Amino acid sequence: MIYTAILGHGTVGSGVAEIMIKHNDRVKDKVREDIAVKYILELRDFSNLTYADKFTKDFEKIVNDREVRIVAEVMGGINPAYDFVKRCLEAGKSVVTSNKELVAAKGAELLKIAAEKNVNFLFEASVGGGIPILRPMAQCLAANDINRVTGILNGTTNYILNKMIVDSMDFDTALSLAKEKGFAEKDPTADIEGHDACRKICILASLAFGKHVYPSEVKTEGISNITLDDVAYAGKFNCAIKLIARAKKLPNGKICADVAPRLVGHDNILSNVDGVFNAIVVRGDATGDVMFYGKGAGKMPTASAVVADIIDCAKHLNARKYFDWQESEEGYVVEDNSKQRFYVLAKSSDFEALDESFNTVFGESTVNIKNCDLGEIAFITDEDYEQNIKEKLKALKYDSIKLIKTLL
Amino acid sequence: MIYTAILGHGTVGSGVAEIMIKHNDRVKDKVREDIAVKYILELRDFSNLTYADKFTKDFEKIVNDREVRIVAEVMGGINPAYDFVKRCLEAGKSVVTSNKELVAAKGAELLKIAAEKNVNFLFEASVGGGIPILRPMAQCLAANDINRVTGILNGTTNYILNKMIVDSMDFDTALSLAKEKGFAEKDPTADIEGHDACRKICILASLAFGKHVYPSEVKTEGISNITLDDVAYAGKFNCAIKLIARAKKLPNGKICADVAPRLVGHDNILSNVDGVFNAIVVRGDATGDVMFYGKGAGKMPTASAVVADIIDCAKHLNARKYFDWQESEEGYVVEDNSKQRFYVLAKSSDFEALDESFNTVFGESTVNIKNCDLGEIAFITDEDYEQNIKEKLKALKYDSIKLIKTLL
Repeated sequence: MIYTAILGHGTVGSGVAEIMIKHNDRVKDKVREDIAVKYILELRDFSNLTYADKFTKDFEKIVNDREVRIVAEVMGGINPAYDFVKRCLEAGKSVVTSNKELVAAKGAELLKIAAEKNVNFLFEASVGGGIPILRPMAQCLAANDINRVTGILNGTTNYILNKMIVDSMDFDTALSLAKEKGFAEKDPTADIEGHDACRKICILASLAFGKHVYPSEVKTEGISNITLDDVAYAGKFNCAIKLIARAKKLPNGKICADVAPRLVGHDNILSNVDGVFNAIVVRGDATGDVMFYGKGAGKMPTASAVVADIIDCAKHLNARKYFDWQESEEGYVVEDNSKQRFYVLAKSSDFEALDESFNTVFGESTVNIKNCDLGEIAFITDEDYEQNIKEKLKALKYDSIKLIKTLL
Repeated sequence: MIYTAILGHGTVGSGVAEIMIKHNDRVKDKVREDIAVKYILELRDFSNLTYADKFTKDFEKIVNDREVRIVAEVMGGINPAYDFVKRCLEAGKSVVTSNKELVAAKGAELLKIAAEKNVNFLFEASVGGGIPILRPMAQCLAANDINRVTGILNGTTNYILNKMIVDSMDFDTALSLAKEKGFAEKDPTADIEGHDACRKICILASLAFGKHVYPSEVKTEGISNITLDDVAYAGKFNCAIKLIARAKKLPNGKICADVAPRLVGHDNILSNVDGVFNAIVVRGDATGDVMFYGKGAGKMPTASAVVADIIDCAKHLNARKYFDWQESEEGYVVEDNSKQRFYVLAKSSDFEALDESFNTVFGESTVNIKNCDLGEIAFITDEDYEQNIKEKLKALKYDSIKLIKTLL
């Protein structure tokens, strides 16, 4: 019999308990050994549940129980999850988690402890919910040199942008609707401002390139700045605006990573990722682009990914999965200084002056849409360094200006 | 030192040799042990290669060499691959293969031998080339009950259909172009007639549902019957025609599987899979739809998947991967008797008679396009049993008629 414990009984935790207990037969089938939940750590009261006897408020009981070989951490947040996970690993227990904040902040350290203790630390559910992405990246692409990871990693923002694009709904209305449908949290800051996507690209980049990329090193921009005008102009340029998280390896071994809204051409399959779906494109030197797509969140998708990790740990109790990355050194993550194309929306009460300066600085041949009545010119720059573009924009006679990155 | 052998030095085989030999450092890094190619079995002469000393024409030398622990079979076809693979497994060697024909025909038997001998038999490259699909299905979806697999599994036919859709190129011209570009073989029958997709859906269905599905049990239809008219009408119905391979589990545990061209709605992400790309949608009870997408063929993508399997075998020389399915019993695969919608194109030299009979039998409210000049009515039936639709069509006054399935 393999004993497990679940830390937390929230949305994901209750899903994990449900699969592990109610569908125990299916899990046993896959493990090919008896497996049971011995404890569920939770401060709230769930005495009405059929498995109420498993609940405890005492973490010490779990960490000190040598029978417990696998612990699922599904509490979220850094504290006390970090302390609990670390102590479980140090006690020689394998740990699985769906906690992206924890893995993005402490992954390298926790993986190191797991390696020292010869146990597994798995976190498939921390990126893309039920989409298998970390394991395929680590295993199936083992013979590839991965040089780029690009993704739509946050369902909430993708849902909002999609509503803006398809239904011409403004940002605030779309956000309210997302909350109503349960796609956005009461405090949606982490989603809207890109922090959630940032944590996920950190995990993907760390695994893909072998060294820890920390959230503080990743330039992160959210979508609260995107207006219906931008969405409409983008559409006219045959693009959709998506919140894109990206990491790439430079020839010198350094990494660039950022999260930002970007115009994505309709010929790019990422532009077709709608609603709460997530998609991750991994570019390997041999495979080319490979995409993984599915619902990136939700109770049961995420819980099923956690249980799959539990099953994997149970099958490898005496074998380490080679699934890790190293601590990184100062200066590992650098600014992206490659040439790019930008979307620009310039407005002026004096359209003629704006227009004339545009023609002088960028030239008529630049892809553009002019709206004389509104005093607006929207355009897509040629490929150039961000610094050069910003320099050029200084010569433009505008009242207000906005820049959005592109994947063009 | 872990010794390997490669059976075959064709397109994929030479790619495998290239990665294993030229990029040996990268492979060693992943295995965390020394690994080398000891033999390459090939009848043709490659004496000009830097690794010419590894070539042999004698299979017995390989199968009898106890130092060889892992064998990559990349010859293709059933004979002699089947005999070679079987004997290597029986000799206690792990085997990896990209040979879909072999796995679709003999998978259950070979997996059973591998289990008895406590070695691994892996074949990630047999479906979707470089797209990781079998391992994610087996592992990451372990906590899911998979109830459906739907895919675009053949790049050649998808390229041809795409050329017909986007460039209004007729079938024969598109096929010639595909040959010219190296996307179609000299004898393209296996691709065009759906046999290649059939083998792949057999492998996917066997793994997803646990028992072997044989190609002869899967109703298979190719695309040679699809005309530019069909493609154009489909477009007007907001659909693209795609060669779809599908397998689903019925509530009674039986399996339905087929390969056929189908009209796919533009709101279905499979309709956006263009060119030589493949995509596989796996539906789990917990995850919902998860899609895997990438180039489904090609020398280096496929070779990299073979090498990833070699690496996995090398890391699990003394542990079996739980990656198998059982032999199936008579009657396991049954006809699909569910209700569906069909695309119908009816032609008659007497349009009025056709039109009148259409209005009587199907009714004006059926989604339809009438072309009086050409004497054609194209329509999409309501959801009904195939038998009922065919019965109804008998009452239609047509000279010729064509039915195409849909995913609507």
